[in-house]
Amino acid sequence: MPSSKPQGGDPDATGRQIAQDLATRLAKGDRRAIARGISLVEDGTRRGRSLLDLIYRRTGRARRIGITGPPGSGKSTLVHGLAQSLRKAGERVGILAVDPSSPFSGGAILGDRIRMPSATGDEGLFMRSMASRGSLGGVAAATYEASEILEAAGFDWILIETVGVGQSELDVVELADTTILVLVPESGDSVQAMKAGIMEIADIFVVNKYDREGGDRLIRDLEATLDLSGWDRGGWHPPVEKTVAVREEGVGELLDAIGRHGDWLSEDPARHERIRAEKISHRAKVLLNRSLLEKVWSEGAIDEQLAAAIEPMSKRELSPYRWARTVLERLTYNRER
Amino acid sequence: MPSSKPQGGDPDATGRQIAQDLATRLAKGDRRAIARGISLVEDGTRRGRSLLDLIYRRTGRARRIGITGPPGSGKSTLVHGLAQSLRKAGERVGILAVDPSSPFSGGAILGDRIRMPSATGDEGLFMRSMASRGSLGGVAAATYEASEILEAAGFDWILIETVGVGQSELDVVELADTTILVLVPESGDSVQAMKAGIMEIADIFVVNKYDREGGDRLIRDLEATLDLSGWDRGGWHPPVEKTVAVREEGVGELLDAIGRHGDWLSEDPARHERIRAEKISHRAKVLLNRSLLEKVWSEGAIDEQLAAAIEPMSKRELSPYRWARTVLERLTYNRER
Repeated sequence: MPSSKPQGGDPDATGRQIAQDLATRLAKGDRRAIARGISLVEDGTRRGRSLLDLIYRRTGRARRIGITGPPGSGKSTLVHGLAQSLRKAGERVGILAVDPSSPFSGGAILGDRIRMPSATGDEGLFMRSMASRGSLGGVAAATYEASEILEAAGFDWILIETVGVGQSELDVVELADTTILVLVPESGDSVQAMKAGIMEIADIFVVNKYDREGGDRLIRDLEATLDLSGWDRGGWHPPVEKTVAVREEGVGELLDAIGRHGDWLSEDPARHERIRAEKISHRAKVLLNRSLLEKVWSEGAIDEQLAAAIEPMSKRELSPYRWARTVLERLTYNRER
Repeated sequence: MPSSKPQGGDPDATGRQIAQDLATRLAKGDRRAIARGISLVEDGTRRGRSLLDLIYRRTGRARRIGITGPPGSGKSTLVHGLAQSLRKAGERVGILAVDPSSPFSGGAILGDRIRMPSATGDEGLFMRSMASRGSLGGVAAATYEASEILEAAGFDWILIETVGVGQSELDVVELADTTILVLVPESGDSVQAMKAGIMEIADIFVVNKYDREGGDRLIRDLEATLDLSGWDRGGWHPPVEKTVAVREEGVGELLDAIGRHGDWLSEDPARHERIRAEKISHRAKVLLNRSLLEKVWSEGAIDEQLAAAIEPMSKRELSPYRWARTVLERLTYNRER
């Protein structure tokens, strides 16, 4: 069965040594090692995966906070405010800002980011923008992997900021321990939009710029919707917090709410274990899907088959569905081995 | 090797009969059959795939136009204008509007859509909103599949509207024959944003609401960027068209530009064949990836293994990377069979 090159074996010794060195430097909080490690996982390299394997036992302690919301809702400013407050309390904070692949919605984000004070000079703060184009499986996997690198480097909090558009961005927030949905009065039909499915991902709602016109109404609508729906996430009733991020108003209260959600998460050990297991399971699935596609396409054989199938497909003699079925029939999973 | 249930065989006779009936009704342009067919592919059902296999030979003739741009750029209004002009020329037009998974950017789109005159009563116009949450591989595959259903039902033009955020939305437009990027003066740093990578997907640029402040500058900047970069897509120099979609201004000129791009595509048979082959190849890859993930997770065995791995992963004794590697080692591709 001359099927495939060995894919599952250990990477070569050099690569492993490099990963080992990086892991050692990461454990000391070396910033260049962090940056390098994140680049490796962003590129989806095997070396990156070796690194993640080595550091996995050092992960699982940090709090992961996902912050999402429409463009222009002030997420970046809010994240910055949360980071500053946490720093004052002596906590080490890593920030991952997920850029959607397209630069469109990036306009506002980019603007915010430029205004954001540089993190240089503070060893307890690390910020990184995650690019997403190119790698299979994409931004969700890479962001989660980056958060593990930050954890291994000793950061206590990982703040993950993402524009809430696209499945992959939702995947990101679903991996967080606490998810915050930021809305603004201007978004107008936010509440109606939320009925379309976004409510279920939020542990905490934030009405930012709440003092603007429509702010009170948005808060009332949100609270009414939450009450009406009898919404609780297994006993957790999501609070609605009010902030004006540019004036740092309400940031302390938001942190308190995050703290309460954390307490709630850990107060019932059985529930805590269940939620944790769900996240690990989700994470493993995302990783497997990504690795699987990489493996299949690295085989070469399928590329060759595809090349041979183009002409009959182009002539409409063979449908892509039939072709895909043929390929899938040749893939087998050996339960025991 | 008691590995898997048979996956590749023909679906059961009933399912096949239903697909066959649908295909027959589709060929007659039956609108309920179109709607049902699109639902089947959206849900990623095997029946849907049978249908697509049956109709594939009837596809490949329609013009697929992808229209993308930031929220609020007036894409929906422009698509509506294009559809009306094409209808006046006697062409049959199908519209697929891709909703991002999240409702955020949906605010404006939803508004546009509500204002859009109903397509009811015109047999030559069909409009469908594509939802995307849930199915593996997602919106790009489903949208392309829906466009094949519309083709089989005799539509000459397929207009695919998508908010340009997220890899999957970019995948949608990359499958189109002609891709239009709609910008507005308000988007401000559009040109700078474009440098980040969006330029390469556009065959035609549209500056909508060009009479607003900043319109002239945006047009100048775009043209300068296109000239400076010496950008041509293999001999095609993307034009910059000016429209005011709400007043139907410039829509005729945009259609002319689309026509010119179509002529250019077909004038060189070798190039035409190459581009066509690339699209078919891309399409087959998207389909295979989607089917592959579905197959793997339908096996059951991997779910069982994942369940058994949760505890050691939770205790940090086993990393997800090592687990994924074990699973991948059991997957083999048999080149000949």
